[in-house]
Amino acid sequence: MRLILLGFGVVGQSLVKLLLSHSTDLYNEYGIKPKVVACADHGGIITCDQGLDLDMLLSVKKKKRSVVQYGPKVDKSEIIDVIENMDAETVIELTPTNIIDGEPGKSHIITAMKSGKNVITVNKGPLALEFPSLMELAEYNRIAFKFSGTVGGGTPILEFAKRCLKGDRILSFEGILNGTTNYILSKMYEGLNFSEALKNASEKGYAEKDPTLDIDGYDAVAKLVIASNLVMNMKSTMNNVERMGIRGVERTQVMKERKNGNAIKLIASCDGKNLVVRPKPVSTKDPICVDGILNAITFTCQHSGQQTIIGKGAGGMETASSILRDLIDIRTVIRS
Amino acid sequence: MRLILLGFGVVGQSLVKLLLSHSTDLYNEYGIKPKVVACADHGGIITCDQGLDLDMLLSVKKKKRSVVQYGPKVDKSEIIDVIENMDAETVIELTPTNIIDGEPGKSHIITAMKSGKNVITVNKGPLALEFPSLMELAEYNRIAFKFSGTVGGGTPILEFAKRCLKGDRILSFEGILNGTTNYILSKMYEGLNFSEALKNASEKGYAEKDPTLDIDGYDAVAKLVIASNLVMNMKSTMNNVERMGIRGVERTQVMKERKNGNAIKLIASCDGKNLVVRPKPVSTKDPICVDGILNAITFTCQHSGQQTIIGKGAGGMETASSILRDLIDIRTVIRS
Repeated sequence: MRLILLGFGVVGQSLVKLLLSHSTDLYNEYGIKPKVVACADHGGIITCDQGLDLDMLLSVKKKKRSVVQYGPKVDKSEIIDVIENMDAETVIELTPTNIIDGEPGKSHIITAMKSGKNVITVNKGPLALEFPSLMELAEYNRIAFKFSGTVGGGTPILEFAKRCLKGDRILSFEGILNGTTNYILSKMYEGLNFSEALKNASEKGYAEKDPTLDIDGYDAVAKLVIASNLVMNMKSTMNNVERMGIRGVERTQVMKERKNGNAIKLIASCDGKNLVVRPKPVSTKDPICVDGILNAITFTCQHSGQQTIIGKGAGGMETASSILRDLIDIRTVIRS
Repeated sequence: MRLILLGFGVVGQSLVKLLLSHSTDLYNEYGIKPKVVACADHGGIITCDQGLDLDMLLSVKKKKRSVVQYGPKVDKSEIIDVIENMDAETVIELTPTNIIDGEPGKSHIITAMKSGKNVITVNKGPLALEFPSLMELAEYNRIAFKFSGTVGGGTPILEFAKRCLKGDRILSFEGILNGTTNYILSKMYEGLNFSEALKNASEKGYAEKDPTLDIDGYDAVAKLVIASNLVMNMKSTMNNVERMGIRGVERTQVMKERKNGNAIKLIASCDGKNLVVRPKPVSTKDPICVDGILNAITFTCQHSGQQTIIGKGAGGMETASSILRDLIDIRTVIRS
């Protein structure tokens, strides 16, 4: 399977490590022989029709900071051209999430789809902004479009909803979809105020330098949009979500709820009509009331009742494992 | 799809209700038109080549306690004959779990397989006693053998492990697989002693008249055997499990652990080699530390880390929904 890799940060490098360590399994179990024919990062894009040497790719990235040092450099402006014209089956889009206009991921994805290539992405921006039209474009071009790592990182939340609940009907779902804010709220539950907890999260590497996306709820909103479209067939985008972040959560409020057996959590919810992200008290006995950087989601089903999935919602290797899952899925569909 | 229904208790009746209420969906979404051509309960078996009237079946059962009052009675001794010779695609085996010799479920399942019929069961006995040989028989006869309701009731624990974690490797799993004992231990955490908690569970209808199967850990053992075979390809039976029930759990012990932030839970665990069911302290912060009749299981994976699934592990309608899921799965395989 010929792959184009766009974005080569922690997740991309973890993926390449997985492809290397799992090459025998992938071939024996699923008939997949992955060949990375192009790889792009901030420096530009490199291509190799016979497939790049993955060990060398990792070592060049580590030593020289950009993959363009690997070999003949192709100008950054030509990424779109490579996506369009290079012979490949699947484009793996891993550029950073941008929730303003979705770029450059959006153009990468659209170009790949229009040129008949399958797309795997963990980039939330394009999906959060234009889920319905991207799905339509994927269907029109009859390509596979997979994005299981966008929600829950390595925790297969979307797969669970789509595959494990067949014959039942999901009536609603709600959960904690952002690890950073959950870590901060967990620290506030232990007694810190908001700014102390944020500082602690930054020190631990759980909060970005500019933590706006997490703190103000945008990351949870993006995931909620993706899940509501996929799981409940809504045609929503970020504009349809009522959003409130956690900046306004006061320590006194957290302590008051604690006395009543509750913790304040940033809850994303979907009842099939309304999409809301907002801090609210949750009983500490509720299975979704998890601590630290964990994610948790509860699906309420017509017959099988409530099902909760809990897992780490981020991490390079975890998210890379979701890409591998998507790759196997695409391969299984092509073969059958 | 022509079905033979063996066992018509709470789960069987819930299933028939689901088939009735979902007939349009089942046909439109999955191309399934279910026809129950035979139905057995403690009174005997009735058959109808054109398909039994499901409304009437439910009403006869409700009013007259046995389906044999529906019409021409066929003697109980002929159930095996019906399984063998009746024209049908799938046998749904719902007789009570018997962990001594697996009967009558085991003979029903084996006869169905040998006569080329697919089998769906929620009966843990035959699987717990003879998983490896039943799987072999199913493969030899090229029939589908589905049992998702045996572990977790309506909560799709087995599906999650098989379908949602592709490309990853499950290294171990552990969890709470029995709701009755978890209810009792939750009550002990609140301060009751064992016999008070058991009495409370009986009053609530969570414990059987003879609670041995639950209390002494056999039910959890049976589920652990099924999960370890399916999820980790072990060739195990009940004899391979180290078992300790909860009769010996003392209130003082529970209270002591509570002070340390732990609750005592009946934990079933599998590390790929050793199978153990035993009460042990679990941190109340651990996602598997759930209360009441809930079930919870954590899978530890090579790349995606730990994933926990929580849900109600029993219930007529919940378990019936797992049978519907299995039915859809079989249909999808036949069609593709």
